[in-house]
Amino acid sequence: MRRLNNLTKPIGSLGYLEKIALKMGLIQNKVIPDLPKVKRIYVFAADHGVVEQGVSAYPKQVTYQMVLNFLNGGAAINVFGRHVGADVYVVDAGVDGDFEFTHPNLINAKIGYGTADFTKGPAMTRTQAIECIEKGKEIAKKAIEEGTDLLVLGDMGIGNTTTATAISVAFGFDIDEILDIGTPIDNDTLERKRQAVEKAIEINKPNADDPIDVLEKVGGFCIGQMAGFIIEATSRHIPVVVDGFPTTAALLLAWKLEPSVLDFVFAGHKSKVKGHKVLLDAMNLRPILDLDMRLGEGTGGALAISIIEAAIKMIREMATFDDAGVSKGSDSV
Amino acid sequence: MRRLNNLTKPIGSLGYLEKIALKMGLIQNKVIPDLPKVKRIYVFAADHGVVEQGVSAYPKQVTYQMVLNFLNGGAAINVFGRHVGADVYVVDAGVDGDFEFTHPNLINAKIGYGTADFTKGPAMTRTQAIECIEKGKEIAKKAIEEGTDLLVLGDMGIGNTTTATAISVAFGFDIDEILDIGTPIDNDTLERKRQAVEKAIEINKPNADDPIDVLEKVGGFCIGQMAGFIIEATSRHIPVVVDGFPTTAALLLAWKLEPSVLDFVFAGHKSKVKGHKVLLDAMNLRPILDLDMRLGEGTGGALAISIIEAAIKMIREMATFDDAGVSKGSDSV
Repeated sequence: MRRLNNLTKPIGSLGYLEKIALKMGLIQNKVIPDLPKVKRIYVFAADHGVVEQGVSAYPKQVTYQMVLNFLNGGAAINVFGRHVGADVYVVDAGVDGDFEFTHPNLINAKIGYGTADFTKGPAMTRTQAIECIEKGKEIAKKAIEEGTDLLVLGDMGIGNTTTATAISVAFGFDIDEILDIGTPIDNDTLERKRQAVEKAIEINKPNADDPIDVLEKVGGFCIGQMAGFIIEATSRHIPVVVDGFPTTAALLLAWKLEPSVLDFVFAGHKSKVKGHKVLLDAMNLRPILDLDMRLGEGTGGALAISIIEAAIKMIREMATFDDAGVSKGSDSV
Repeated sequence: MRRLNNLTKPIGSLGYLEKIALKMGLIQNKVIPDLPKVKRIYVFAADHGVVEQGVSAYPKQVTYQMVLNFLNGGAAINVFGRHVGADVYVVDAGVDGDFEFTHPNLINAKIGYGTADFTKGPAMTRTQAIECIEKGKEIAKKAIEEGTDLLVLGDMGIGNTTTATAISVAFGFDIDEILDIGTPIDNDTLERKRQAVEKAIEINKPNADDPIDVLEKVGGFCIGQMAGFIIEATSRHIPVVVDGFPTTAALLLAWKLEPSVLDFVFAGHKSKVKGHKVLLDAMNLRPILDLDMRLGEGTGGALAISIIEAAIKMIREMATFDDAGVSKGSDSV
């Protein structure tokens, strides 16, 4: 803080950048934080049984097709990953289809071929829910052992915002504050989405005091794995940047399991999906970017890396008043 | 637009990035816009006679000292310029002090040793006002002839937000909507700032229908040069990114002189200085970043380059639905 205030600028004039730099210093336990050396984006892909209720604009097979697009480097997250110097890894947390090849950036962590339709019963078994958390932890552990020191989370899966809505409502948020379109859908589809979430809660009665029960009843394989990933990474003091609504629902789950995670998490952006801001506010996280994006895949988190790095460079590279021979203002005495 | 809508993402899901990419395409008159090859930041530095009224937290000599800091690479704008791959040029538009050396990034365009105190009469002569516009045009012309294809504007000068406030009020904005602290100042200083602006308007009676008269009466050498710079660059279809309140007051002046400039201008960020947003709204420009920054120097404009480049890369590098074999959603038929 003292160093920040002695840089050649009026105190506080770099606004939120100063808070980002301070948080990164606290995470690293250094006055002058290091720049990340190995940045990685992990996109967790899975299918959601609830799509059978007609809640999305896209057919389910798009999840599988988009994984191929990620591995071929043609999706938005690939473009933005290259732009900020971060490699993109894709986790098959539970896509409905087999990837019958190996690829250095594809991680097989399949729990099943999509969750069950949670309007008719639990999305998964309790054993699967626990397995999700454990697999997510393993993936983070490996990433960190390989030297990764900045992680971005992304989610891909047709139906993922319906699942994220159900998780939010299960934890006590009002559906009217949360429900929104993910991809562009018409009012009838949005109404089916509402009914699916309401029915899921009514039938499954998830216990908000037992986050694993929420995951089991109305969660997704991707969400559970991301929650485990966040818990493991943050326990090792590695910062995680969350993206939009589904990754933030995973953070909500992680936070309910382990409240200290928030000290190590940055909100990459504010998605246009309205429930996203509600969750961020509840966790007192300020989004770095606000560009009306609603794509997911980690795109908002990836773009925020440039701002996070600028904040770190500010504290590392700027001259102090003493160095530069600049007169201090009346605010800095 | 057709290409944007066929990229592998739901239509509109990249929000404001899509509008940035479209605007860049229109500026370049290309469906697939080019990435900028030579990016430069021009920081216009000048002193403001009104500081004699005690309107700033910093002594006047900080303007001179900060120019040295810019040339030594130690200021925030240098850090962010390096971060986004843009060179920083400093224009001596009218600093109260001579730079008795040459430096490849220092441009001598001095109109005078600071403006006159506009609470006592015009800030400059009409001849000087016209000279400001012409010098600014020359600087832009040279930058573009040297290959620059993306320009960021920054302003440095103790007292610059007082001048920017006076210009805004001269063009009809309500002082209560505009007046704010630039650097941290106490209420007494803020009250002196208000009185200085009110007195400047009362004594000089700037004519809002004659932008050169506004510049002469209550302007600054930096503001006038930036206005000329914007007019020249945009007339050559080179995009200009404005930064905070003073650069945007220069844009206001340029817009009053030449309404077409806005088609080629991006607002890098929304400054915490409240009048900034008012001016941006009046010109219907949406800021790219909103990080509570209020430093100036071009810092917000520089950071926005990363987002502008990401938008261009999106349209250049993303796969289309056809390329990637991804099923289109019901929104895209």
